Amino acid sequence: MPVITLLSDFGTRDYFVGAVKGIMLGLNPDATMVDISHEIPPQDVFTGAFTLNQVYSCFPQGTVHFAVVDPGVGTGRKALAASAAGHYFVAPDNGILTYIMEANEDFIAYEITADHYFRKPVSATFHGRDVFAPIAAWLSRRIELHKLGPVLKSPVRLQIPALKKVGDTMIQGTVLAVDRFGNLITNLKPEDISMPFKILAGQREITALRKTYGEGMPGELIVVPGSAGYLEIAMKGGSASAALSMKAGAPIGVILQ
Amino acid sequence: MPVITLLSDFGTRDYFVGAVKGIMLGLNPDATMVDISHEIPPQDVFTGAFTLNQVYSCFPQGTVHFAVVDPGVGTGRKALAASAAGHYFVAPDNGILTYIMEANEDFIAYEITADHYFRKPVSATFHGRDVFAPIAAWLSRRIELHKLGPVLKSPVRLQIPALKKVGDTMIQGTVLAVDRFGNLITNLKPEDISMPFKILAGQREITALRKTYGEGMPGELIVVPGSAGYLEIAMKGGSASAALSMKAGAPIGVILQ
Amino acid sequence: MPVITLLSDFGTRDYFVGAVKGIMLGLNPDATMVDISHEIPPQDVFTGAFTLNQVYSCFPQGTVHFAVVDPGVGTGRKALAASAAGHYFVAPDNGILTYIMEANEDFIAYEITADHYFRKPVSATFHGRDVFAPIAAWLSRRIELHKLGPVLKSPVRLQIPALKKVGDTMIQGTVLAVDRFGNLITNLKPEDISMPFKILAGQREITALRKTYGEGMPGELIVVPGSAGYLEIAMKGGSASAALSMKAGAPIGVILQ
Repeated sequence: MPVITLLSDFGTRDYFVGAVKGIMLGLNPDATMVDISHEIPPQDVFTGAFTLNQVYSCFPQGTVHFAVVDPGVGTGRKALAASAAGHYFVAPDNGILTYIMEANEDFIAYEITADHYFRKPVSATFHGRDVFAPIAAWLSRRIELHKLGPVLKSPVRLQIPALKKVGDTMIQGTVLAVDRFGNLITNLKPEDISMPFKILAGQREITALRKTYGEGMPGELIVVPGSAGYLEIAMKGGSASAALSMKAGAPIGVILQ
Repeated sequence: MPVITLLSDFGTRDYFVGAVKGIMLGLNPDATMVDISHEIPPQDVFTGAFTLNQVYSCFPQGTVHFAVVDPGVGTGRKALAASAAGHYFVAPDNGILTYIMEANEDFIAYEITADHYFRKPVSATFHGRDVFAPIAAWLSRRIELHKLGPVLKSPVRLQIPALKKVGDTMIQGTVLAVDRFGNLITNLKPEDISMPFKILAGQREITALRKTYGEGMPGELIVVPGSAGYLEIAMKGGSASAALSMKAGAPIGVILQ
Repeated sequence: MPVITLLSDFGTRDYFVGAVKGIMLGLNPDATMVDISHEIPPQDVFTGAFTLNQVYSCFPQGTVHFAVVDPGVGTGRKALAASAAGHYFVAPDNGILTYIMEANEDFIAYEITADHYFRKPVSATFHGRDVFAPIAAWLSRRIELHKLGPVLKSPVRLQIPALKKVGDTMIQGTVLAVDRFGNLITNLKPEDISMPFKILAGQREITALRKTYGEGMPGELIVVPGSAGYLEIAMKGGSASAALSMKAGAPIGVILQ
């Protein structure tokens, strides 16, 4: 039972996701299709990349990941099929695989040029259905990657927000994402801080490090090591994002002592 | 592996979709169920019809399409099982299959009267679970349509917004739908216009025809042949619907020269 | 084909549901996974309990129900595996199974202590992925419940809003839930009222009992026996919740004569 995961900014209101799955099932009726998210903010390639990176390794070896956030659809941007760490990926060449590339030395990408695998006619506006869905289905049937086109040496990479250390006691960081609960996922990892610390976020100072969201007093802002491997700023019983008026991309400061 | 697609206005917050799928799986554990959308606006039969029409042909022959937007549930409206172009459909008789009927000469509908297939007791308010789900499951097991009831000669049809030509140079059209990106899907097809043209929408004139959403300048209103076969009014990097304050049903004008 | 249903407050925007399903598929590639809802309001255990109760019995015997609304994740709250009426359940011990317990005499719960089944390392914040997903997958492979840990004699129960009868002619009730259409699901059952009756809700009196949402005049407030077994307050062509400014938990009164 080959698995195909789907991540996109297609939303779930329109027919887009259904069309993609219909094409996949036509080519591989045995595929098990699992939605990661179709609510990536429209054309937000970075959030797509971040979300994919949190989840792909939870799936079995051999899983094919369809990751289509594609502001350049129909323009000259390339289409990619790739493998890394025993997983397969199909995606536009716009950086949505950046985290996968950076984390896996065995990452290899091919430019998809074998258009006889495409749904015809290929629309200029919906390559998710016409290009990426059939390629994902063929990969789930274990077609070899090199049959799809030539190796692509320099796929597009996004700039991932990096920590900036200012001396030994100050760090400038960034909010990478905000989850459904309003938790702010930062680019700080637990090993980046030491006690005592002070995180400056919005107009507030946060000094409490907790193991879980359930600790602390209602309304208290806390720092929690999140399940994605990053430190998160959370508020018990509330939304840290709303309380601090902070979104993805917002800067944070850390003062160590 | 028979496929059942699901389209409804049930939303995804409540237990409705789960109940439908549970009933289907009880009757056909081998069914592959694929959601098209459950976010059709409540009781908006036309949007249901439009959405179904964009997607059903992407699925393999033999697929059963459950299409339940049902403002008349529990009243005298009939229940339908139908076939067209190698696909099966179960739906209330309220016009949700209008596009399917119009496009396929082999369309044939049966009124579902064989209530021994229903879940008992049949509630007055949730025929999706009690009537349409079991019928869809039985169709996915390849029960013959004529066993469900008599042929229905005149199923309900919606009036599909038609183009109105005013002389050789003016056309009055309509916005059929707005997608998640704010693109306005019109009832114009590419062959309906010729260059140069001017589309009047809201208070604006649009003259740029592009192949993709990625062309043009940020904020520019453009016309793009969409993946559903209709011309769409789009705005690069933004929502045409928001910029023009236009929704489904809004009128547009076209001036050809 | 074992079935696993999923109910949570994880939302569908982030990677959470995908991670859970990836872990399940790794342990049981043959599982059929069906989403009930991931839009339970964050940390709203009661709505989770109510939603699960509406739907679990629609699924085939042997289905495993993953029900994770878990404000106490990572704290001392226990993890449960349970069975009732031929169904299996995995959930935090916070009352989310209250309705299941109350309705089924054969309900039996085990505290999950066999941590060799968990995904390692177990995060403090995402037991859905690390604890409940693998246990659900093992249950779908028919591991015996007693291998997971000892029987738990007194699992946590929520207080379910009860009707309060005031003499023979007055009843105080509660809105248990509001569905996607704005219908108010009360804790009244059809047998609790008799004609004529008057329901006091918000500032309004409602006296019309209908069989379906489609009866009555547009804008009229009506009472309908809903598909979940409770009386619902509905408004034809509109949202009763919006019209009455009432939400889950709001009180209602009934006057019988």
